[in-house]
Amino acid sequence: MAVELKELTKRSENYSQWYNDLVVKADLAEQSPVRGCMVIKPYGYAIWEKMQRQLDDMFKETGHVNAYFPLLIPKSYLSREAEHVEGFAKECAVVTHYRLKNAEDGSGVIVDPAAKLEEELIIRPTSETIIWSTYKNWINSYRDLPILCNQWANVMRWEMRTRLFLRTAEFLWQEGHTVHATEEDAEARTQQMLNVYADFCEQVLAIPVIKGRKTDKEKFAGAIATYTIEALMHDGKALQSATSHFFGSGFPEAFGIQYIDKDNQLKNVYETSWGLSTRSIGALIMVHGDDDGLVIPPHLAPVECRVIPIAQHKEGVLEKANELLDELKKAGYRVKIDDSEKSPGWKFSEQEILGIPTRIEIGPKDIENNQVVVVRRDTREKIVVSLDEITTKLREILETIQQDMYNKAEEFLKAHIDTAVTMDEMKEKFAANRGFVKACWCGDPECEGEVKYQTGGAATRCLIEDEEFISDKCIYCGKPAKHMAYWGKSY
Amino acid sequence: MAVELKELTKRSENYSQWYNDLVVKADLAEQSPVRGCMVIKPYGYAIWEKMQRQLDDMFKETGHVNAYFPLLIPKSYLSREAEHVEGFAKECAVVTHYRLKNAEDGSGVIVDPAAKLEEELIIRPTSETIIWSTYKNWINSYRDLPILCNQWANVMRWEMRTRLFLRTAEFLWQEGHTVHATEEDAEARTQQMLNVYADFCEQVLAIPVIKGRKTDKEKFAGAIATYTIEALMHDGKALQSATSHFFGSGFPEAFGIQYIDKDNQLKNVYETSWGLSTRSIGALIMVHGDDDGLVIPPHLAPVECRVIPIAQHKEGVLEKANELLDELKKAGYRVKIDDSEKSPGWKFSEQEILGIPTRIEIGPKDIENNQVVVVRRDTREKIVVSLDEITTKLREILETIQQDMYNKAEEFLKAHIDTAVTMDEMKEKFAANRGFVKACWCGDPECEGEVKYQTGGAATRCLIEDEEFISDKCIYCGKPAKHMAYWGKSY
Repeated sequence: MAVELKELTKRSENYSQWYNDLVVKADLAEQSPVRGCMVIKPYGYAIWEKMQRQLDDMFKETGHVNAYFPLLIPKSYLSREAEHVEGFAKECAVVTHYRLKNAEDGSGVIVDPAAKLEEELIIRPTSETIIWSTYKNWINSYRDLPILCNQWANVMRWEMRTRLFLRTAEFLWQEGHTVHATEEDAEARTQQMLNVYADFCEQVLAIPVIKGRKTDKEKFAGAIATYTIEALMHDGKALQSATSHFFGSGFPEAFGIQYIDKDNQLKNVYETSWGLSTRSIGALIMVHGDDDGLVIPPHLAPVECRVIPIAQHKEGVLEKANELLDELKKAGYRVKIDDSEKSPGWKFSEQEILGIPTRIEIGPKDIENNQVVVVRRDTREKIVVSLDEITTKLREILETIQQDMYNKAEEFLKAHIDTAVTMDEMKEKFAANRGFVKACWCGDPECEGEVKYQTGGAATRCLIEDEEFISDKCIYCGKPAKHMAYWGKSY
Repeated sequence: MAVELKELTKRSENYSQWYNDLVVKADLAEQSPVRGCMVIKPYGYAIWEKMQRQLDDMFKETGHVNAYFPLLIPKSYLSREAEHVEGFAKECAVVTHYRLKNAEDGSGVIVDPAAKLEEELIIRPTSETIIWSTYKNWINSYRDLPILCNQWANVMRWEMRTRLFLRTAEFLWQEGHTVHATEEDAEARTQQMLNVYADFCEQVLAIPVIKGRKTDKEKFAGAIATYTIEALMHDGKALQSATSHFFGSGFPEAFGIQYIDKDNQLKNVYETSWGLSTRSIGALIMVHGDDDGLVIPPHLAPVECRVIPIAQHKEGVLEKANELLDELKKAGYRVKIDDSEKSPGWKFSEQEILGIPTRIEIGPKDIENNQVVVVRRDTREKIVVSLDEITTKLREILETIQQDMYNKAEEFLKAHIDTAVTMDEMKEKFAANRGFVKACWCGDPECEGEVKYQTGGAATRCLIEDEEFISDKCIYCGKPAKHMAYWGKSY
């Protein structure tokens, strides 16, 4: 479990290798012996716990409660809604038997053919079908609405090519599922939750995002509309960071959900769902990480500060460092000390790889001068702080780091949003790795396919619904534009 | 999702039906459409969240970190340790395929026979095998030890007869898995975690427990020793509430785990595991519940107090009740108001079914007298409290309830622990529904079987290792006693 201190591949040399190295060297996760499934190691899981706790608080503030629904879904449920089965029923883990037995030749255990299930069960790739089947019995009258439930769970989609956090067969996420009496309420909830995700990314992860609607091709299987937030990695690729879906009443109708309104009439309900997953840890790495390791924004950091004694064999150093530690803990900081036998240089490197937002260096000279040196992980700036003021100053420094990290990421995002009116412009901009490019489009998937081909992979990330069109023509075919979209390459 | 207010079956009439009724009427959980799997409803899940949070804090205080390991386990892993495969590999959900496809006749989706896995995967019934396979790569030298990881997860065991919370195919739990350099350290950890569970039960759930070692027949498959805490339900049956296992070095050897010690020698490691599940919610119900519903100890209660306005249509009542609510919230109470149109009587019943530890009644007369009436859920006692003192008095009342609930359960437990030296005594005591009976035993499973048969189901719950024997003979065969045990019927 020791952090690896061999050098990271540089981002400029091989971005993809840098990412893989970092996940391993910062002790976040590793491939498991089970194909496509990851082990989330303690430090990676501590980051996920911090995400969970803060997002969960935001859900509860907006009126949601948590519940838990079954892991397994009867195969037939996936067929109830035609589009949904196309989108989700294909690559998934299928449970067919419920018993093993000893092989007669003593070679080990085998599947007992007598224990075959009448109907196969699917490990949930997402839970709409099982949750709505349950909701059906919870809803009789208008008094039962709205239902505002969230679930923290593991889900599984059989992916052929996997990458730690970004795409794994099993991953952890939350999925909110709400039911409303009116279309307006459901639409408002879809937008509200998209904004909760955007706020969470901006305030906790220090990651600015673009927001918008997915095209019909990209929307959730069975939804009327899917909204997305997308963050920009520093290699110019987008990462879909959370989605919020509006289902209207068609999908619930397929599950037989209706309610009796105040006027005694049977009416349709309207549903939403929304999710964010461990994929966000991938975004964290690729927005803030650098050639020395992870950089975690203070609001998310499991440890905000590591105290590192200098020349700790000298009299009084360890004692003073531990006094400082206690003082900071008492003041509410998430702080640890590294008083191991390793050299200060090794300890600095480790703190940097782990992305701990600050370290405090305290040695004999510092103690003599009643001061410490605070070193920022994001800028490497060294700040001399009086020991009398450290409990208040450190908070200020951490808040400055949080804000500076957001500002830096926002500047990067803004510098990588551009516009294009012609295909030449479009190609030029993606050749220069421009991140997002705004361009107009007729809505024809064929045009999108051609753009994707000619730009080496840039497709619509989301439709922009609240801005004036920059052109009245489709960037590819020249026919009248129906949409303006953010285009980009993506993970 | 509305709470059902029809009357509960009385415990004295049909205990089992009372339990089933209560789980449904208190809105804790329900059967799902998937055989043997439950839906944990928001109120039930809120209780589980409170358990999780407090137990997790206790784990972290004792040095543990959380991590996450794969849901699926290769079939061959279960065969690595002979006893383990016998105990866990049999009744489990087996994943054999990874894809569905559309049926050619258009009848829906079918399992794609081309997508058969080379090796079947098992949904984890417990995670020792996958976790130890992972630990193998984490351990090289003494510096890597101890490993102190815990996982919060869902697990699945294919149960034929299920009961909500007590026995379900899928359930939620935590499983701690630690690795140590010495046998002493591992043994000490096994005991430490058993004590953590006992403390959690006593301090949070207000449930006293007996502690001891399981017999070889009852121990965890592959362990050297399994320790258990057992609580007594009010029908006189025991419920195993948590277990802690000591594995020694045999099981880790089967997984090839060794370490290089300071003296440069390759040495064996020693492992433990320990778990507590959503089953604890069943214990909560059957230790504290009564004929009017659930009774939740204040330290566990998602809501500690419900404010119920009386004659709320009268001027100033709702206003004053909401003022009180805000004041209590500000003082740190988990408090809600029921200002719906329902009658006070209906609201009282609901608060009682849900087991909310206190309600505050506030009406025009109370306001006139600058007071409120606090009603305890456990004793129905009505306590008049001045509005000037409510923010401090309510905390005192809640602490008193917590302590009184524990005392009552402890008194019940003590009154239902007895001793027996002859089979006649034993039969008599279990005929009178005595809960636990201490008796000596030669260690022969046949004797245990006979006792079980003659008492209508009482077997050893755990061996008592720190008390003087009450007899030197086996209660059944009269041969020399090897053990003294708690005997009891169980869930």
